[in-house]
Amino acid sequence: MVPHRVPRWPTWLFCASPGWWRTACTLGASVEQRRWPGSPWGARVTSPLACRGCSSTPSRAPEVTLTQERYRVQRLPFSTVSKEDLAAFERIVPGRVVTDPEELEASNVDWLRTFRGCSKVLLRPRTTEEVSRILRHCHERNLAVNPQGGNTGMVGGSVPVFDEIILSTALMNQVISFQSVSGILVCQAGCILEELNRYLEEQDFIMPLDLGAKGSCHIGGNVATNAGGLRFLRYGSLRGTVLGLEVVLADGAVLNCLTSLRKDNTGYDLKQLFIGSEGTLGVITAVSILCPPKPEAVNVALFGCPGFAEVLKTFSTCKGMLGEILSAFEFMDAECMQLVRHHLHLASPVQESPFYVLVETSGSSAGHDADKLSGFLERVLGSGLVTEGSVAADQRKAKMLWALRERITEALSRDGYVYKYDISLPVERLYDIVTDLRARLGPSAKHVVGYGHLGDGNLHLNVIAEAFSASLLAALEPYVYEWTAGQQGSVSAEHGLGFKKKDVLGYSKPPAAVQVMQRLKALLDPKGILNPYKTLPTRA
Amino acid sequence: MVPHRVPRWPTWLFCASPGWWRTACTLGASVEQRRWPGSPWGARVTSPLACRGCSSTPSRAPEVTLTQERYRVQRLPFSTVSKEDLAAFERIVPGRVVTDPEELEASNVDWLRTFRGCSKVLLRPRTTEEVSRILRHCHERNLAVNPQGGNTGMVGGSVPVFDEIILSTALMNQVISFQSVSGILVCQAGCILEELNRYLEEQDFIMPLDLGAKGSCHIGGNVATNAGGLRFLRYGSLRGTVLGLEVVLADGAVLNCLTSLRKDNTGYDLKQLFIGSEGTLGVITAVSILCPPKPEAVNVALFGCPGFAEVLKTFSTCKGMLGEILSAFEFMDAECMQLVRHHLHLASPVQESPFYVLVETSGSSAGHDADKLSGFLERVLGSGLVTEGSVAADQRKAKMLWALRERITEALSRDGYVYKYDISLPVERLYDIVTDLRARLGPSAKHVVGYGHLGDGNLHLNVIAEAFSASLLAALEPYVYEWTAGQQGSVSAEHGLGFKKKDVLGYSKPPAAVQVMQRLKALLDPKGILNPYKTLPTRA
Repeated sequence: MVPHRVPRWPTWLFCASPGWWRTACTLGASVEQRRWPGSPWGARVTSPLACRGCSSTPSRAPEVTLTQERYRVQRLPFSTVSKEDLAAFERIVPGRVVTDPEELEASNVDWLRTFRGCSKVLLRPRTTEEVSRILRHCHERNLAVNPQGGNTGMVGGSVPVFDEIILSTALMNQVISFQSVSGILVCQAGCILEELNRYLEEQDFIMPLDLGAKGSCHIGGNVATNAGGLRFLRYGSLRGTVLGLEVVLADGAVLNCLTSLRKDNTGYDLKQLFIGSEGTLGVITAVSILCPPKPEAVNVALFGCPGFAEVLKTFSTCKGMLGEILSAFEFMDAECMQLVRHHLHLASPVQESPFYVLVETSGSSAGHDADKLSGFLERVLGSGLVTEGSVAADQRKAKMLWALRERITEALSRDGYVYKYDISLPVERLYDIVTDLRARLGPSAKHVVGYGHLGDGNLHLNVIAEAFSASLLAALEPYVYEWTAGQQGSVSAEHGLGFKKKDVLGYSKPPAAVQVMQRLKALLDPKGILNPYKTLPTRA
Repeated sequence: MVPHRVPRWPTWLFCASPGWWRTACTLGASVEQRRWPGSPWGARVTSPLACRGCSSTPSRAPEVTLTQERYRVQRLPFSTVSKEDLAAFERIVPGRVVTDPEELEASNVDWLRTFRGCSKVLLRPRTTEEVSRILRHCHERNLAVNPQGGNTGMVGGSVPVFDEIILSTALMNQVISFQSVSGILVCQAGCILEELNRYLEEQDFIMPLDLGAKGSCHIGGNVATNAGGLRFLRYGSLRGTVLGLEVVLADGAVLNCLTSLRKDNTGYDLKQLFIGSEGTLGVITAVSILCPPKPEAVNVALFGCPGFAEVLKTFSTCKGMLGEILSAFEFMDAECMQLVRHHLHLASPVQESPFYVLVETSGSSAGHDADKLSGFLERVLGSGLVTEGSVAADQRKAKMLWALRERITEALSRDGYVYKYDISLPVERLYDIVTDLRARLGPSAKHVVGYGHLGDGNLHLNVIAEAFSASLLAALEPYVYEWTAGQQGSVSAEHGLGFKKKDVLGYSKPPAAVQVMQRLKALLDPKGILNPYKTLPTRA
């Protein structure tokens, strides 16, 4: 098969990447009609105010403190990059060794401007062989490596902590093959998610995942972090849809498990080790993934619910009546909607309610799907589960409804300093932590809000204050983690652990499991050179 | 949560287990109106003739040769069970230590009567704690252990090779919890698949997997072998639907990753190590699994196709037009149908065709599904992709259509000695190996037939001869494996490797991967006591 190139973004769209956003904020420039990187629907940022009040992106972005200083991390005894190393890299990836500090800036700092490393070199391999040679060299020389995709992570997993060599997948952006009978795509790790989706749509398929960061994130990074996102309810986990991986191990050995088979029960399924291990066990260089057919019809509806019990019952009814066409079931509380209205001037077509539910269907027959949706609407309105509903009549309206849910993050950021938690809970208890925290925090928090992927049991819990306060943080942590652990929940539903959350792993996994993880790390990366200081806790 | 017991099979249904089948064949008894264990639709075995001509179950079943003799295996230097060991086991599982040779017989021999171990003791723990204490003892004493569920495996993975202690999950049959909002079931490993499905159906849910052996197989064994089966096309791999596992490691340590969360990105996903590792890395004691709602409507249709190219085009059309309601796409060739008719006297409602396709839909609206199916039928008949079609008008007819596909195994067994291969291939090449083999083998084979789960790229390739012939075997192996490897296929799509296929792993996985598997085995089971002689090749 002759690989062919996936076209890259046109220049103006490149501006929409986190890199652009950061630059715009830093410069305080007026930016209009550009995509907000956190929204899959291309919501607009109309002024630099977009950055104001954001806990991580103030209007005049100050220098981001070095992670090593802010968190007082001790550098591990890796070697430092020498002139000889640079010469060796230049031989492996000629003309693609970046050492210019300004060029390195965007890759040393995460897009939330929370973490900063001080890497002196970034490498841009194009092939697996180049990645293998780079890692073989780094392994021999005991040089630490930070694999980096689109750098859109939420937990500081994609930027160096010290001077790790940044290994970028940006130039590994080739589609290797697509089989239109089976819907199996094989591509390099650096392909951008949205671009892959566009490529597939031309052939009446779609990617099985969709994320706010799709315009920048790389499929390799998606797999390395086991990304969830908006199509999870319908198409399930990447663990089920990723069919094969090619991975380069810490010592440069290439593990080619890039099969395109739906079924393969020959030995241990090694690729699963690398899905969600955040680049700490190996560098993913290529991905084989099963893609669903593009749905013929998509419907979106918004409902108001009188209470959380009714939200849950609506979800059960929805699963029963919409069945196989249900593709999203998102919820938000009244305060979320108020903040969206206040800060973004977005109007809800549904009157004030304690809760709102956004339902999306994706099916193969517009008529059937509309029938099912109206039957469902009749049932939930008639039974009082929902007080009011609005079904999008066209794509524009559907986008407007999605914007109410998708732009919550933006609205909250404009309201003050935001303490963010991304947790999984048994769906029946999903909202209890919100009411519990409201009582616990009282007036010390401006808002405690809850929204998220109810269909996946995934709550985005956000606490807003006028400004950062250590005492409020102390009231939140470890309380939120302990509460979550008390419900056998997950302290990181879809964002992973990275640098930020590595030390809370123990709230969701027992010591025996953490110990096995550490033994796996030692087995596959005995020198610990791959993405150090991430995922596993500092202390055993 | 108070565990409650899943009712076991009534006695007459117990007769339907592989154990019954074997007994019936051995005794030459006339058995009527009993379930054939290989059929999910309860096809009937009307006389002992059911066993005649079966390569693995002759009418007067001879003694099965000991595996160690037949395959000349060298026993590894494990300890042998002493009186002190038996006393220790009796303290751990009082009254549940089986040493009677007759009672042990059914657990020493696999249901296909191909492999025989000579274990002297079988243990029946009820709790995870008991499993842990047993393994701790065995680990200290260097005693080998053969974990056993329903003993329904196809590759000799579930019976001992020598005198390994058989650790049965049969009494670990409790449902721990079921959440009806999320559809998440948590249960012990020894629950029987069909029984779980029945339990769920009462609550309008189903298990996400279905197998011919469902009346006997244990969910723990299903997970340990990453079972595929009949619902794979619709609900996907167990890797996506299993949410949590509890596993006891070789040294008795309990790894509790039994979460009930759809999303949990905290650290490495250890449960994936145990899914499909065939009991060689740990003993699965409990499972948390996401269950889909029970479909309101199920339709089954059979079509005749003029060629394999048309089968493929029908599949593409089917995916496009039936979309989200498509739940099975099975195919069989003309020779399969002829053998089914000849040996089982089952009539096809579709006239003689080179190929047949069985399509099943499962959806939430009978009317919509019928509409979609008839639209699809119109399209494929109009375009000449299929020459004729028959849609089941009721459940009885649906079962009859399924029987044509499901009883192929039985029909082939009656025709002579069967060489069986279960391979995955790129769907476009799925049938090429059949035509290739016909040309290669010529008259030395009575029949070379192909059928299987086309939607999953899974071919059941069967070669029939009057009797076993070493020269025919030599013409088949390693040729079939090399052919499969040449297409980047899998030499074991859903059956696993067990004892029978462990040495062909290298046809589907590169040496670097096999080496990592061996290092994982050494990491988690350094003494190699768990299911020895299985899954990994004899030589590195």
